[in-house]
Amino acid sequence: MSTSYAAEVWNLVQRVRAQSPLVHNITNYVAMDVSANVLLAAGASPAMVHANEEVEEFMGISDALVTNIGTLSPPWVEAMLRASDRARALGKPWVLDPVGAGATQYRTGVARELTELRPTVLRGNGSEILAVHGAGLNTRGVDSTVASGDALGAARALAAQLQIVVAVTGKTDYVTDGARTLAVHNGHAMMTRVTALGCSLSALVAAFAAVHGDRVLATAAALAAFGLAGERAARESAGPGTFRQRIVDELYLLDESTTVGGAVVEDV
Amino acid sequence: MSTSYAAEVWNLVQRVRAQSPLVHNITNYVAMDVSANVLLAAGASPAMVHANEEVEEFMGISDALVTNIGTLSPPWVEAMLRASDRARALGKPWVLDPVGAGATQYRTGVARELTELRPTVLRGNGSEILAVHGAGLNTRGVDSTVASGDALGAARALAAQLQIVVAVTGKTDYVTDGARTLAVHNGHAMMTRVTALGCSLSALVAAFAAVHGDRVLATAAALAAFGLAGERAARESAGPGTFRQRIVDELYLLDESTTVGGAVVEDV
Amino acid sequence: MSTSYAAEVWNLVQRVRAQSPLVHNITNYVAMDVSANVLLAAGASPAMVHANEEVEEFMGISDALVTNIGTLSPPWVEAMLRASDRARALGKPWVLDPVGAGATQYRTGVARELTELRPTVLRGNGSEILAVHGAGLNTRGVDSTVASGDALGAARALAAQLQIVVAVTGKTDYVTDGARTLAVHNGHAMMTRVTALGCSLSALVAAFAAVHGDRVLATAAALAAFGLAGERAARESAGPGTFRQRIVDELYLLDESTTVGGAVVEDV
Repeated sequence: MSTSYAAEVWNLVQRVRAQSPLVHNITNYVAMDVSANVLLAAGASPAMVHANEEVEEFMGISDALVTNIGTLSPPWVEAMLRASDRARALGKPWVLDPVGAGATQYRTGVARELTELRPTVLRGNGSEILAVHGAGLNTRGVDSTVASGDALGAARALAAQLQIVVAVTGKTDYVTDGARTLAVHNGHAMMTRVTALGCSLSALVAAFAAVHGDRVLATAAALAAFGLAGERAARESAGPGTFRQRIVDELYLLDESTTVGGAVVEDV
Repeated sequence: MSTSYAAEVWNLVQRVRAQSPLVHNITNYVAMDVSANVLLAAGASPAMVHANEEVEEFMGISDALVTNIGTLSPPWVEAMLRASDRARALGKPWVLDPVGAGATQYRTGVARELTELRPTVLRGNGSEILAVHGAGLNTRGVDSTVASGDALGAARALAAQLQIVVAVTGKTDYVTDGARTLAVHNGHAMMTRVTALGCSLSALVAAFAAVHGDRVLATAAALAAFGLAGERAARESAGPGTFRQRIVDELYLLDESTTVGGAVVEDV
Repeated sequence: MSTSYAAEVWNLVQRVRAQSPLVHNITNYVAMDVSANVLLAAGASPAMVHANEEVEEFMGISDALVTNIGTLSPPWVEAMLRASDRARALGKPWVLDPVGAGATQYRTGVARELTELRPTVLRGNGSEILAVHGAGLNTRGVDSTVASGDALGAARALAAQLQIVVAVTGKTDYVTDGARTLAVHNGHAMMTRVTALGCSLSALVAAFAAVHGDRVLATAAALAAFGLAGERAARESAGPGTFRQRIVDELYLLDESTTVGGAVVEDV
């Protein structure tokens, strides 16, 4: 299984490079720089645009949207609502990253309100997916307190109920539409020691979803590609400072043999 | 020609290091970190200050202003208007970076409104300069869809009409006041794979404009110095992650022989 | 003296790694990325949360608060007031970084208003501490124009008057509660060529203050650990771009022999 999916991952990596999708980011302040650099390294074109005066028009020229509530506030949430309305009306993929859902009532409420609008893909860690689903409120800050597998049931239920794709990331990543589930076994623990790499991953999912209609596959491919870049970067990095730059290099450098030989995606 | 300009570039690099101009940045969220680090590497002193309660007073102690509309919103535009009014009243150089002009009506309108206030230097890519001039609205996000040379006519017309300096950057950079035009041939394609390096360049132009009255020359010198740093960084970088740090190193390390031997600026 | 303090520094480094305190940051846009990465490298858990709708609730799950006025505006100051009220009510440490105090009346006023609320630790450079104390208003932007030692009197007076800990950082760092004063001799000049490392240090102080009740010692330990990481990073860095990543690596890599052999903290 993993062999054929690995070829698909490489296919998707090439498509993003060839098509250079314009990704409209309404994301948190911490993630903007690294997300933009991750998108550029993958061959996509990032734009950070949040003013209510222009988000709807900008969605018109964008190929995908990512909304991330990491440093949310009411005017930014309004921009997310406007842009996601437009993305859905235009049939463009929208990825939601519910950063820190479960940490405060405000944050959990916004995460749920946005999720109910049916993003194309919802991507979070185990704690966040549980919080959005309502099964748990045990998030501690923005880091997950549960393993991704412990949130797989909630992910499947959310996906089936809303007819969306849900990705729950952790040591193993799971991507599900409720019926079909893929597991991605790439990645490295050092990725949790650099801020906003999860946020950058959500942005990358948006780029991949822009170039392929099978969003379960596209999401898994983005997770595998970034995880593979992380594995390779970790070998060359003394610590998380160097790692943060090397993972961007490695995403840019991914080639066919590395990707086909290294991506591990399987049905579960 | 280029020999003598190269010596001027080195002269300007030294002046920035010696005088350490305080550059007041009202810039976008993505660009703040890398712009500040580029300014520090060049020997300038950066400050990011945007509150309407203090921008005018802060302009009083600053040596130059850069306004950048990358992540604009109405309160930030108001701060730009206040600070630029003050900069002009105090005779301090003001650089405007019209990021993404042409992408939305709001953005194009703000870019034009600010340009009509006559910044000392307007710096953008080809698409942005065409959009500000009104000759074209074919920007795609924040990346240029036209070569810098295709916007040279618009740049010259804008410069002559408003009596400002206009810099249009790309593979070749052009700096013009409408009558005189310099071309800068430094730089590297990798600079387009790192977010906010164009924004950082605008900040660097402000630092250079603060230490020399000939703003065509000062702008070209900033472009040459940063382009040269980019050329050198590219030789040592596996990808854009490492490159982003090395270009900061190389700007910091620029010495006389490298600069005089490498800067390529000529009259056109 | 310094031998025994060096062992304490190592003790504190280990406690942060073991307890992974959740640090609530209400900080400036420039500092968010590097502060979060510094906290992660030290083993702490960072969160950037500023919405007035959630800062109080979020303080309830956090172990420490840092407020930093670098890019202040009225809604952010309100968030700082709400969060710090909550931190004090809950007995959790609160670190205040009065970035640029002295540069404008608004900024100085906010810095003083917050200081009067008695943060657990006030950390600034010489100019900022003098400005908060009222003894001088000669700040130039955000960089200090005075040596740390010149502000030691003001630091002691502020600390004694408000019964808080004041840290004034520079070539030598001083930490005082008015009665007792520790000097920290670690650090490297390259740290002043990278933006927001001072801000990151304030965040690190919050993490250290969360794991030890002696806040003079905890603050000095954070300064020594980060300074030591800076010394080691400087040896391996061609310039400030590489240095910015290496200091994060070195903080992550700090071990017992390096720390005990290198931290220089003494009573003065």
